[in-house]
Amino acid sequence: MINDIIELITQKQYTKLKAILSDMEPVDIAQLFDDLPERYMPLLYRLLPKESAAEVFVELDSDTQEMLIRGFSDTELKDVLDELYLDDAVDIIEEMPSNVVKRIIQHTAPEMRHSINEILKYPKDSAGSIMTIEFIDLKEDMTVRDAFTKIRRTGVDKETIYTCYVTDRNRVLKGLVSAKDLLLSEEDCVIADIMEKNPISVNTMDDKEDVARALSKYDFLSLPVVDNEYRLVGIVTVDDAIDVIEEEATEDIEKMAAITPSEKPYLKTGVWDTFLQRIPWLLLLMISATFTARIIAHFETALQSSLVLSTFIPMLMDTGGNSGSQASVTIIRGISLDEIDFSDIFKTIWKEIRVSLLCGVVLASANFAKMMILKEAALPIAAVVCITLVCTVFFAKLVGCTLPLFAKKIGFDPAVMASPFITTIVDAMSLFIYFNIATALLHI
Amino acid sequence: MINDIIELITQKQYTKLKAILSDMEPVDIAQLFDDLPERYMPLLYRLLPKESAAEVFVELDSDTQEMLIRGFSDTELKDVLDELYLDDAVDIIEEMPSNVVKRIIQHTAPEMRHSINEILKYPKDSAGSIMTIEFIDLKEDMTVRDAFTKIRRTGVDKETIYTCYVTDRNRVLKGLVSAKDLLLSEEDCVIADIMEKNPISVNTMDDKEDVARALSKYDFLSLPVVDNEYRLVGIVTVDDAIDVIEEEATEDIEKMAAITPSEKPYLKTGVWDTFLQRIPWLLLLMISATFTARIIAHFETALQSSLVLSTFIPMLMDTGGNSGSQASVTIIRGISLDEIDFSDIFKTIWKEIRVSLLCGVVLASANFAKMMILKEAALPIAAVVCITLVCTVFFAKLVGCTLPLFAKKIGFDPAVMASPFITTIVDAMSLFIYFNIATALLHI
Repeated sequence: MINDIIELITQKQYTKLKAILSDMEPVDIAQLFDDLPERYMPLLYRLLPKESAAEVFVELDSDTQEMLIRGFSDTELKDVLDELYLDDAVDIIEEMPSNVVKRIIQHTAPEMRHSINEILKYPKDSAGSIMTIEFIDLKEDMTVRDAFTKIRRTGVDKETIYTCYVTDRNRVLKGLVSAKDLLLSEEDCVIADIMEKNPISVNTMDDKEDVARALSKYDFLSLPVVDNEYRLVGIVTVDDAIDVIEEEATEDIEKMAAITPSEKPYLKTGVWDTFLQRIPWLLLLMISATFTARIIAHFETALQSSLVLSTFIPMLMDTGGNSGSQASVTIIRGISLDEIDFSDIFKTIWKEIRVSLLCGVVLASANFAKMMILKEAALPIAAVVCITLVCTVFFAKLVGCTLPLFAKKIGFDPAVMASPFITTIVDAMSLFIYFNIATALLHI
Repeated sequence: MINDIIELITQKQYTKLKAILSDMEPVDIAQLFDDLPERYMPLLYRLLPKESAAEVFVELDSDTQEMLIRGFSDTELKDVLDELYLDDAVDIIEEMPSNVVKRIIQHTAPEMRHSINEILKYPKDSAGSIMTIEFIDLKEDMTVRDAFTKIRRTGVDKETIYTCYVTDRNRVLKGLVSAKDLLLSEEDCVIADIMEKNPISVNTMDDKEDVARALSKYDFLSLPVVDNEYRLVGIVTVDDAIDVIEEEATEDIEKMAAITPSEKPYLKTGVWDTFLQRIPWLLLLMISATFTARIIAHFETALQSSLVLSTFIPMLMDTGGNSGSQASVTIIRGISLDEIDFSDIFKTIWKEIRVSLLCGVVLASANFAKMMILKEAALPIAAVVCITLVCTVFFAKLVGCTLPLFAKKIGFDPAVMASPFITTIVDAMSLFIYFNIATALLHI
């Protein structure tokens, strides 16, 4: 595909190229830019049909956007900006260096400039920062006919016209009417009679993840955003909610793997940035492994007299680590999905106790059989290893299920707090248990 | 909240209860059932306003649904079934035991029964299994006025009316018209003139994750599902896509933590089922740790002569494991989000080589300083540990980034194949490197 495009460009077959582009979805065109040599980008962009140029622009990555903006004439820049929806404009501005931002702000219409500044003042992860202020607001005394006239006159973005919001004179949110309700009602009906009262809404300062979760829970296409006086200031649409849900899952996964989350895709993050995302956790976890070294050093005499004990250290640590992270990861995801909260702690502990005993006994039996069959160690050593297994799995699951809940309770992020540390804690714990049982049972 | 409800039930304050319920969203009412003692459930359900009873029913968990169905009279069952949307009915049926399914099928209208059987025949993770067959299909020669008449007459579910699909006599998909386009067009316009041709569609047998990903990528509210002859058979709506996206992220997270995925929330899964989700992986990974035991046993003489080497085993293994899973988890998530595929393997390897050398050198320096300051070991031992660190991080990241890509290439699930095994592979590797460097450098 991309090679065909480059060939057409170099052969100056612009009419053919235009025809191909006009049949493509904006997001697919934007993907072409990913693989296109930079020198062809401005040319390809100028070949786009006017109506889709802005849509393509929104989907480009921010480096390409910046490059294009720097090459735009003032008229070209104005053309793009005039076509942008407000929330997209804000997204773009947030990624640009300040001199580019200045140029953008200079070329937006005064009304839009005002709105952009409004949205930019909301905190990064708030509902306010992802909302759009383009929506249809109706009044209670309008008829269905008036509503249709208003929709036709406003003609805003596709996600935003299917739920209309009803406000009073002070812009206080009173109700909502779906486009479906409007279509199924008589033209003379009054909005107040068909609207749904007390609609579910979110506050501008609510966390955007909670907003996305609510949209997903109620299966809405949009959710109204109100300020502290319950005045309607914007709406969050379902397509933005999906982005938040995907970002949030990626962030959780990264945190659980001891990576500082980034918003950029892997292939577009530089080596240095990737290094910075990873090194703090590796350093912290490496240093915290000093404990395990200390524990082994402490039991050096025991180890000296029965060196075979050392061969089972990796297995015990890994099984403990795996058991613990099975529990912690399940609980962390449950917390993220609002399925589990701190009040479930006793239910959770009781369940993990039973699961851990089942797992521990099965693992210990299997391991005992393996050690006997492969003649890996004498009977007393095998007993020590297997008893340690049961205890390690038990405590690992207990730590794994409680740590995320406590982290959440005291206001820390469970994914960051709990997951990377589970292995370290469980390692230290399992070695401690192992050597204590060994010294007691083997009298060394 | 739930205590107030129970109090009202026991005091037989049904009018008050009804008033409260009529103001609540169906999904919130369904959450009440989670905490309600079973004996009150049928009563509470019967107090629901008729129009929302079916919506609440859909949101209940399957155990509660089953319990209620068993208690329903035939008329009550029919009332619920008549109000259900087809895709919801299919979801419910898929969770029920066969005798309940039989009773449900008996009481559905013949046409719906036929459609249910149609959908049930699609494979579990296919587009066909999550689609709904309730959609608006228009013909090319209809006018906008005809279209509105058809929408009013059909009056289907909210997500499904906002994108209307245009088919020919053979039901072959020709185009789409959004409700917005209809509203903004003159009543006499012909559909063929305003419809978008060549709409993006999916096949009934496509993976539901790909369908959800496409809906999210294109910001559509629904996506048409066609059969091999390109005939329109159903649509997938955005609310179902969100569910798929959340499920998929949960599944990936579970697989990466060596858990067999389940569709039930943690608190609703029994102890035995949770045990079964976890034990196979724990067993497999425990057995595979036999390698590490063998490696240590092999180098027993080296260890005997320099026992302090053993104290650094946990730190080396953990740092290797963490480094490896940082890389593998990033790549696995990138594959899931369609950001990375096998053709990026050289780019990925080259990047990880540079990141791993940066990480390795920083970690080794920090560790060397720590070992010297805390006097944990003599200089030669410190040198062995630090060189091992650099090598381990290097190979761990290399394995971590390539394994998921190869798994994907040969058709295995990267999350299952790669993540749980990274630790085991890296453990064995780091021990092997450690002892080889130690024997070479320390002449033991």
